[in-house]
Amino acid sequence: MSSSDIFIGETIGTAILILLGGGVCAAVTLKASKARNAGWLAIAFGWGFAVMTAVYISAPLSGAHLNPAVTLALAIKDGDWSDVPVYWAGQLLGAMIGAALVWVAYYGQFHAHLTDREIVGGPGAQATKAKAVEAQEKGAGPVLGIFSTGPEIPVVWQNLATEIVGTVVLVLAILTQGLNANGDGLGTLGALITAFVVVSIGLSLGGPTGYAINPARDLGPRIVHALLPLPNKGGSDWGYAWIPVVGPLIGAAIAAGIYNVAFA
Amino acid sequence: MSSSDIFIGETIGTAILILLGGGVCAAVTLKASKARNAGWLAIAFGWGFAVMTAVYISAPLSGAHLNPAVTLALAIKDGDWSDVPVYWAGQLLGAMIGAALVWVAYYGQFHAHLTDREIVGGPGAQATKAKAVEAQEKGAGPVLGIFSTGPEIPVVWQNLATEIVGTVVLVLAILTQGLNANGDGLGTLGALITAFVVVSIGLSLGGPTGYAINPARDLGPRIVHALLPLPNKGGSDWGYAWIPVVGPLIGAAIAAGIYNVAFA
Amino acid sequence: MSSSDIFIGETIGTAILILLGGGVCAAVTLKASKARNAGWLAIAFGWGFAVMTAVYISAPLSGAHLNPAVTLALAIKDGDWSDVPVYWAGQLLGAMIGAALVWVAYYGQFHAHLTDREIVGGPGAQATKAKAVEAQEKGAGPVLGIFSTGPEIPVVWQNLATEIVGTVVLVLAILTQGLNANGDGLGTLGALITAFVVVSIGLSLGGPTGYAINPARDLGPRIVHALLPLPNKGGSDWGYAWIPVVGPLIGAAIAAGIYNVAFA
Amino acid sequence: MSSSDIFIGETIGTAILILLGGGVCAAVTLKASKARNAGWLAIAFGWGFAVMTAVYISAPLSGAHLNPAVTLALAIKDGDWSDVPVYWAGQLLGAMIGAALVWVAYYGQFHAHLTDREIVGGPGAQATKAKAVEAQEKGAGPVLGIFSTGPEIPVVWQNLATEIVGTVVLVLAILTQGLNANGDGLGTLGALITAFVVVSIGLSLGGPTGYAINPARDLGPRIVHALLPLPNKGGSDWGYAWIPVVGPLIGAAIAAGIYNVAFA
Repeated sequence: MSSSDIFIGETIGTAILILLGGGVCAAVTLKASKARNAGWLAIAFGWGFAVMTAVYISAPLSGAHLNPAVTLALAIKDGDWSDVPVYWAGQLLGAMIGAALVWVAYYGQFHAHLTDREIVGGPGAQATKAKAVEAQEKGAGPVLGIFSTGPEIPVVWQNLATEIVGTVVLVLAILTQGLNANGDGLGTLGALITAFVVVSIGLSLGGPTGYAINPARDLGPRIVHALLPLPNKGGSDWGYAWIPVVGPLIGAAIAAGIYNVAFA
Repeated sequence: MSSSDIFIGETIGTAILILLGGGVCAAVTLKASKARNAGWLAIAFGWGFAVMTAVYISAPLSGAHLNPAVTLALAIKDGDWSDVPVYWAGQLLGAMIGAALVWVAYYGQFHAHLTDREIVGGPGAQATKAKAVEAQEKGAGPVLGIFSTGPEIPVVWQNLATEIVGTVVLVLAILTQGLNANGDGLGTLGALITAFVVVSIGLSLGGPTGYAINPARDLGPRIVHALLPLPNKGGSDWGYAWIPVVGPLIGAAIAAGIYNVAFA
Repeated sequence: MSSSDIFIGETIGTAILILLGGGVCAAVTLKASKARNAGWLAIAFGWGFAVMTAVYISAPLSGAHLNPAVTLALAIKDGDWSDVPVYWAGQLLGAMIGAALVWVAYYGQFHAHLTDREIVGGPGAQATKAKAVEAQEKGAGPVLGIFSTGPEIPVVWQNLATEIVGTVVLVLAILTQGLNANGDGLGTLGALITAFVVVSIGLSLGGPTGYAINPARDLGPRIVHALLPLPNKGGSDWGYAWIPVVGPLIGAAIAAGIYNVAFA
Repeated sequence: MSSSDIFIGETIGTAILILLGGGVCAAVTLKASKARNAGWLAIAFGWGFAVMTAVYISAPLSGAHLNPAVTLALAIKDGDWSDVPVYWAGQLLGAMIGAALVWVAYYGQFHAHLTDREIVGGPGAQATKAKAVEAQEKGAGPVLGIFSTGPEIPVVWQNLATEIVGTVVLVLAILTQGLNANGDGLGTLGALITAFVVVSIGLSLGGPTGYAINPARDLGPRIVHALLPLPNKGGSDWGYAWIPVVGPLIGAAIAAGIYNVAFA
């Protein structure tokens, strides 16, 4: 694969990943969306099929990493680091484009949601006004959750551990695809298996932190959240931003180590 | 493929697509349906499996476009426009037949729903009577939603953009199927992948406009809605009707352009 | 395939189909089930995966018809009626065994449900006492719904039409499997596709009658319902019993006709 | 396969199975989880995709039994018992590791859940205080359900029968995989089929006992529950612990017998 194919493939693929992944969060969260309150199962399937669609479209160009942690793990496994910067650059750019496209596709919904006095501060506002004020003061409403992840309970070591554990599972499933391929059309079936692995991680390990398991998926949209001219959007919670970057990279390194010791 | 195979295949396939796709909207919307209020996840999976079933059945006859936007994209990609009119004619006819079959299958449910004073005007009626009256006056109740799409917030440029973005994703996934096929039974697996791509678009991009992403899917049933002798059915919202036709066609052209530049 | 393999395969397969299909109805309906009120999406996926599991297990023995309507359609298509009686006998026996196994697996739940004064008469009882009494007098509580199908609105021509339309879709998808097979492991993928076709029919066409689309699936469990020593079980609604037998058989004949004209 | 590959594969695979399977129970049950109250469909899909992910990753090393009942059935079928102890040891160790990882990933959630006065005793506490006290005295709150299964209605013969019936279905589907493989990449597709069989058993037969259908899946996490320093965790319900061990083993033996008589 040429560097330009890699860059274009990763940019297109990660843009589609975040468009669809951020899209399902917008669909379930925002006022005046037909999918409002569709629940966690919709989120988990939405992200899983977002991965499938993005992998399927970009695989012919770049092999569809779409995740700096996956790129890191493959570099460790193969001992070849030459394409890492191109992959990472495409992934971050694609994630930012995807987040901007979510804003375009849900433009009216964002506006209606953020300018409605009653719901500023998010669902929490319905329970108690104090909570809404607190949410406002903390500068983090539900709209940030459409772009980036955040913990239910902020415990640094646990949040980091949850992201590491989730990424280990994801990366092990990707690394073992080569071992499972026996003329069964991995290009297509691999996309399907990966989709359901991501649904699985979402359903099972998404509860505490919202399962970034992908540095670009979290950082790119967080930058876009900081840049977009959204009214009442609150802060971008930069204090948490390192965990969904560092955690997945550590998880990828651990998974590559397990693979090299036990499977290779 | 002969022209008659194409026409018959597209007619049968699109009829099944709309029978099942409109069917799930009827199932979730109408009073006295066992699936009443099954939610957005049911809608999204219902449309996805509708596409899968229709593609699977009609693929041996016509290649299963079932969507004028897909036909347009393939014509641009291949530079061959000769079969476009036959495909489009079959698709529109099929969509109308499918919508009529939804009416047959849910005949009693339509009648019970539309003649019940309490629910005329749709779920909105439960919140406020004013809204029910308004819905009546606007001539658009929930029954139109079983046939055609409509925006939650009517903003022309955004509604158009959402349909364009959704169709770009759909068409890119279909155009790249040829690149992913390595002896893996694309006929069958392609139907499955396409199904989940449609579920993905529904979950992630369906919130603002209800994701037509297919001119025939919207226009055919809207014509049938206008023709059917349903009591209290309200208007067919012709003012919006051009968006789910033009948006998907623009999206298909953009996707074909991206494909020809980046993938071909 | 020998007649004994056919008979054993259809008996085992249809028993598993009804065990799992009736099982999900019991799981969602009965008091003291962990899946109580899991909703229509659970029902639709439950029946779809019931078909997949049963087809997958019995396919090596009998080809996995598991449905008299499918057997009829294949006999019409191939012009070979010699094995029809063996298939039908195995299917009906299997359906009865499966329904009895549901009763075993949910024994305590059936008892708790049917002997609880508050819930006799089913969910309807919660709305109005009159309705509960009426349900009792009509001799049809929710427990019959675990065994057999019934219409939400009893309109003979529509109920028949809905079963016909649903079966046409199912049988066309099964008949076209041979056309879609290009070395892609139809045994396994066919089971998966059929599963999602059944989910689709459930989501989209199940609302009015509960989608029998299979005479054995409805008649076998209805006989078992009539025989089982369940307290307060109510009648078996024999007046409706012919529709889910005749409708699917008509639908199968129509689908075979469409296939022979358009696809063969 | 070498004994060390088997042991390592089963340990890794069963750890991932229980991490993801126990994880979805934690996600749906625990306070301060984003997936709280996601419902039974989330549980069923969560366990199904947990099996898929674990099978997919460990299949190249050990063939991915991940279940003592599956190992037993294959030993009976093949008449080869030499590797059974290695499989069983890896499975039990892996299940314990997986359960410990659930505790790590949901550490803050466990603490918040178990130390909140209002919810000790579980959802039952919201209905009546008496029930909460009773739950406390019985020493079994909802947290045990994250680790191990338990019956809704304790009837020994029925609970045993339900586990037997569920395991017969699971094991028959696994034993017939060899018969369905015709060059269709069983490694990958088999994982997918098995996933949906497990979803099916969960939706259809999970209502009464929570479907262990795997002795290691229940026993390993129950031991970990007994060992972990969780506050207010209640007892580990050892009186029930033999049923999800013995039931699945009986079911596996029955399934192997059916296979040898009818399919071999």
